[in-house]
Amino acid sequence: MAIDKVAVLGAGSWGTTFAKVVADSGPDVVLWARRDEVASAISSTRTNPDYLPGVTLPSNLVATSDPAKAFDGAQAVVLAVPSQTLRANLSGWRDMLPAGATLVSLAKGVELGTLKRMSEVISEVAAVPSDQVAVVSGPNLAKEIAAGQPTATVIACSDHDRAVDLQHACSNSYFRPYTNTDVVGCELGGACKNVIALACGMAAGLGFGDNTMASIITRGLAETSRLGAALGADPLTFAGLAGLGDLVATCASPLSRNRTFGERLGRGESLAQAQEAAHGQVAEGVKSCSSIRALAQRVGVDMPITDGVHMVCHDGLSAGDLGAALLGRERKAERQ
Amino acid sequence: MAIDKVAVLGAGSWGTTFAKVVADSGPDVVLWARRDEVASAISSTRTNPDYLPGVTLPSNLVATSDPAKAFDGAQAVVLAVPSQTLRANLSGWRDMLPAGATLVSLAKGVELGTLKRMSEVISEVAAVPSDQVAVVSGPNLAKEIAAGQPTATVIACSDHDRAVDLQHACSNSYFRPYTNTDVVGCELGGACKNVIALACGMAAGLGFGDNTMASIITRGLAETSRLGAALGADPLTFAGLAGLGDLVATCASPLSRNRTFGERLGRGESLAQAQEAAHGQVAEGVKSCSSIRALAQRVGVDMPITDGVHMVCHDGLSAGDLGAALLGRERKAERQ
Repeated sequence: MAIDKVAVLGAGSWGTTFAKVVADSGPDVVLWARRDEVASAISSTRTNPDYLPGVTLPSNLVATSDPAKAFDGAQAVVLAVPSQTLRANLSGWRDMLPAGATLVSLAKGVELGTLKRMSEVISEVAAVPSDQVAVVSGPNLAKEIAAGQPTATVIACSDHDRAVDLQHACSNSYFRPYTNTDVVGCELGGACKNVIALACGMAAGLGFGDNTMASIITRGLAETSRLGAALGADPLTFAGLAGLGDLVATCASPLSRNRTFGERLGRGESLAQAQEAAHGQVAEGVKSCSSIRALAQRVGVDMPITDGVHMVCHDGLSAGDLGAALLGRERKAERQ
Repeated sequence: MAIDKVAVLGAGSWGTTFAKVVADSGPDVVLWARRDEVASAISSTRTNPDYLPGVTLPSNLVATSDPAKAFDGAQAVVLAVPSQTLRANLSGWRDMLPAGATLVSLAKGVELGTLKRMSEVISEVAAVPSDQVAVVSGPNLAKEIAAGQPTATVIACSDHDRAVDLQHACSNSYFRPYTNTDVVGCELGGACKNVIALACGMAAGLGFGDNTMASIITRGLAETSRLGAALGADPLTFAGLAGLGDLVATCASPLSRNRTFGERLGRGESLAQAQEAAHGQVAEGVKSCSSIRALAQRVGVDMPITDGVHMVCHDGLSAGDLGAALLGRERKAERQ
């Protein structure tokens, strides 16, 4: 089914950028912002001054603070709200969702408490079968995409035809989506990378260079793959754009919030200080490390980097002591 | 067999750094330099002012320009000469090699003409069985290791016991080697990464950011893994330190010669201009892309990034046209 109208719920930097990507690909887009003044600013200035300053939005993208207006006639509903508030937001919208629309998650995380992935939360709250839910994940730093830099990504849906429809609705000269049917792998890659990016940031804050970063990325992807295998993901997904690709972009980039947050912790700032510097927001990985650690414990998978990040964020370990603990482990073969 | 004396042949930055790593781990080291003045400078100043300025070398590391002195009594011989001169160098040393010593390759590349990996060249020229040859490969930027920053690496040898002896001879507080028996995979990871780093450098030189770099790394590792699988390597090796780890360190680092060289090509400089800026040296990947491409063609493996780098380096394609060619490929599923 061709998609010619898309609703994007959430006007943060990634939601606004993805709305632009879709509009630039052809379909009309209605972007919902929680705050009326953000919706008004987008409508009147064709920019989102708070979350994507300096980027002109296309004319087939309109903004609203009324979710019913966004949903009206949409064949795809893109959920770009934070992972830990997705359940509450979607519960409020449940009765307005257009029947049969593909529900698309841009959120990356594992829900605290239930330990559910975002697509599971969506399927449960919206009461739709899992093959009606898709996720978008890949090396997707919003500001670079908004600037029109060429980027690849993955659209994962267990219904391949639905993924292909969505692929056509967001393919353009700078955005190149690949389809994949491994939703579990793509979501775990996206969730775990925020935690590994915190660890890379800590190492950078401690003054370590690219060898250390590369070692953390490699061992971090190894523990993510172990978790994925235990939860039914295809191990090859982690070697792809939604695994390795997203992880490298997030860990290497000074634009990444998780990496920047980790750098502050590495330099010895407290969680509260780092949060204050991030305009009151804690990085996604600070919350995700708790739910991912709990998920790993439930299925009996060893995730030493995630454990270490959790200890620094929630149990008072210093980043310096974490480094020493990881390096002091017994010498071994690479595949043990 | 415990190793208490090691010869390191080649006093460039990586050879000198690895000699320091071994000496800091316990064994005595004799470092051979081709030029007498380099050997003399190391002996008199305890530094290598040309290739590793500012780093003090330990007292159990001595330098010589006489290869016989280096080989005398060594249980391990580390070959740290450039890949395309390894055959000629080793041919001259063949009759002096200590019997039974482990021969260790630090060189990363595939020999032009024969299309042999470095361990194959060593085994052939020295007339020793392949299980007497080991390779060291991983995220190993010399300057960071020389500065004592914590680093992991892989020591690969088909004889596991020999790898473990070598692991003990170079384990210390800042250098953490893992053993692996997949020599083919470790060597291909090390050789191919120089070519991918050239491509990442070109993208950076064209002004692209971290999404693009992450996409090139991901797709570059995918084509490296395809080549490895066709040549009998274990695909998991490429997800490890000698694959992904080395690739990320090389592509992300401003210290990487291949990445820096690629950046110059991306900014529109000619090969000759980039070579001049690099003190007359061409980056390893400029040569390797020819031999790796020939190897891929021999076994029927598609390597679009390596092909593209080859066209820029040797067939006059501009880096900008390469980017357009790679992005213009048909839309598809990730695993096709």
